[in-house]
Amino acid sequence: MVEEASIKQVILKDYVKGFAKESDLILKNSIVKLKIPNQCSNDAVLVKNLYLSCDPYMRGRMAKTDRISTCLIPYGKLTVITKNVEFLKHEGPNVFFVNMTITGYGVAKIVDSSNPDFKKGDLIWGLTGWEEYSLIKSTQGLFKIQNADLPLSYYTGILGMPGHTAYIGFYEICSPKKGEYVFVSAASGAVGQFAKLFGCYVVGSAGSKDKKELMFRVALIRLKEEKFNGRIAVCGMISQYNLEDPDEGTRNLLCLVTKRIRMEGFLVFDYYNLYPKFLEMMVPLVKQGKITYIEDVAQGLENAPNALVGLFSGRNVGKQVVVVARE
Amino acid sequence: MVEEASIKQVILKDYVKGFAKESDLILKNSIVKLKIPNQCSNDAVLVKNLYLSCDPYMRGRMAKTDRISTCLIPYGKLTVITKNVEFLKHEGPNVFFVNMTITGYGVAKIVDSSNPDFKKGDLIWGLTGWEEYSLIKSTQGLFKIQNADLPLSYYTGILGMPGHTAYIGFYEICSPKKGEYVFVSAASGAVGQFAKLFGCYVVGSAGSKDKKELMFRVALIRLKEEKFNGRIAVCGMISQYNLEDPDEGTRNLLCLVTKRIRMEGFLVFDYYNLYPKFLEMMVPLVKQGKITYIEDVAQGLENAPNALVGLFSGRNVGKQVVVVARE
Repeated sequence: MVEEASIKQVILKDYVKGFAKESDLILKNSIVKLKIPNQCSNDAVLVKNLYLSCDPYMRGRMAKTDRISTCLIPYGKLTVITKNVEFLKHEGPNVFFVNMTITGYGVAKIVDSSNPDFKKGDLIWGLTGWEEYSLIKSTQGLFKIQNADLPLSYYTGILGMPGHTAYIGFYEICSPKKGEYVFVSAASGAVGQFAKLFGCYVVGSAGSKDKKELMFRVALIRLKEEKFNGRIAVCGMISQYNLEDPDEGTRNLLCLVTKRIRMEGFLVFDYYNLYPKFLEMMVPLVKQGKITYIEDVAQGLENAPNALVGLFSGRNVGKQVVVVARE
Repeated sequence: MVEEASIKQVILKDYVKGFAKESDLILKNSIVKLKIPNQCSNDAVLVKNLYLSCDPYMRGRMAKTDRISTCLIPYGKLTVITKNVEFLKHEGPNVFFVNMTITGYGVAKIVDSSNPDFKKGDLIWGLTGWEEYSLIKSTQGLFKIQNADLPLSYYTGILGMPGHTAYIGFYEICSPKKGEYVFVSAASGAVGQFAKLFGCYVVGSAGSKDKKELMFRVALIRLKEEKFNGRIAVCGMISQYNLEDPDEGTRNLLCLVTKRIRMEGFLVFDYYNLYPKFLEMMVPLVKQGKITYIEDVAQGLENAPNALVGLFSGRNVGKQVVVVARE
């Protein structure tokens, strides 16, 4: 007889306008079978979720229609959602559906697998459901965790999608040169530390005093003169996600011309081929303590909605992670 | 005895706020000597101005202080202005000075020269004064006109700085591929024609019906689906030049992220090394009639102020040029 479990799930109550509130998400209990159904493809895995990542881009996935179709999160074509977790190859996550479990990046352990490359007990990170167990219909987009001697939760942050985003934005999009000046918004994260280790001068801004104190490893200097030929890597705009359409508008874009600036948007999903190269650099840095990394940990799925919406008021200090289970 | 001439000059009356008016510029008569003064360097030339170019970027040079120092036209360091024409190597033109002759791109004939590379009778284009004769203290930034069998006025437009800007924006900044879709704002100019000749699909917008009719050579098609990895070359923002600070703000910049767009500002002065390559392509295209080029011609310096301010209401159809003298 197939083992069953009573699990908690985080459900989207309705599409969100304006600031996301904790009450936009609700907890639900369901009974699930802890085995892959026979009708699934031979690439499905059933996972036990350990750590869930709260990421700003998830706000876009809570919205409906217009802004989605124009700008906010048209990461990929709308596909048929699977039982709990939808996948879009490397195009990234899609919008949430009302009354269904929301999804996001997380760290999980394989419980059952129909793909011989993913064995029971293997640890993975990738898109999973905000629930205790998830059935993932395709392993495409899942990464097996090889360095399990580092804290597993790090794969929701510094060693996962957010860290990889910082790496791509700095090294690939900005093509930095030693001695250049780097301005980092949200400077308590990884980009400023990459820039300092690389040999750049770093100037940062942060949304609160607490976060500024995290910038202790970042040499703060003032930009004394105009700099030309700057590059701006744009991976998101958290300040705009909760505004009603239209957004505030960005002024002084003419500076792009007079200062010869290149501004480039990117999505990390387009650079997953560079993830092994990123890990090769990052794992030793983390092990040697050369990268400072702080987590803001919420315990249990019941605290997940509050943790997620806290991002948008900048309440978290450090990476916001939700512990679903320790192992 | 040195020959003297009574000349007309266009003078900036005061720094301009908001929309530039014809009365912001005044005509003045002066007596000048038609010989280079002894105290000039051995790189000075005295020129007779033939055609003057009315260009949108000149609006920025009419403004003072704040916007200049922050954004509008910080093309280069402020240098001591020479008698009539200031130069900043290849950094481009500087702000105008009140009560002095304004400067801009033009076509001129050498009348006297202390540089053996520029002989009496040679035709040049480059930065000169809005006056009948100009003393130019350095030939750096002047281009000798080799193809004088094409209309000389073309060197204020399609064969000069504006044409070169279109070329750099399209070929260098955008790195186009055949079959790609190109959107051109102000599509009655050269960029759309380059794109069509290159084998791209072109979509354009223009500020008036007359200008739209100039787009006859441009295949108008509709963008049917979202395009990713777009490149936007930004050479200016005429709609913003006459606004009081701050500008209107650009909305939906988050699209840079979701659509993986690169937006790059550039100044043509940084690409003057490619001017010969540009001419090599452009001269045959113009001679063979493969590029449509229309001029809006104002006769005489007395009509120059009106011609210049007309740019900002989009009154001109085709390149706005001022004829000072035919030869």
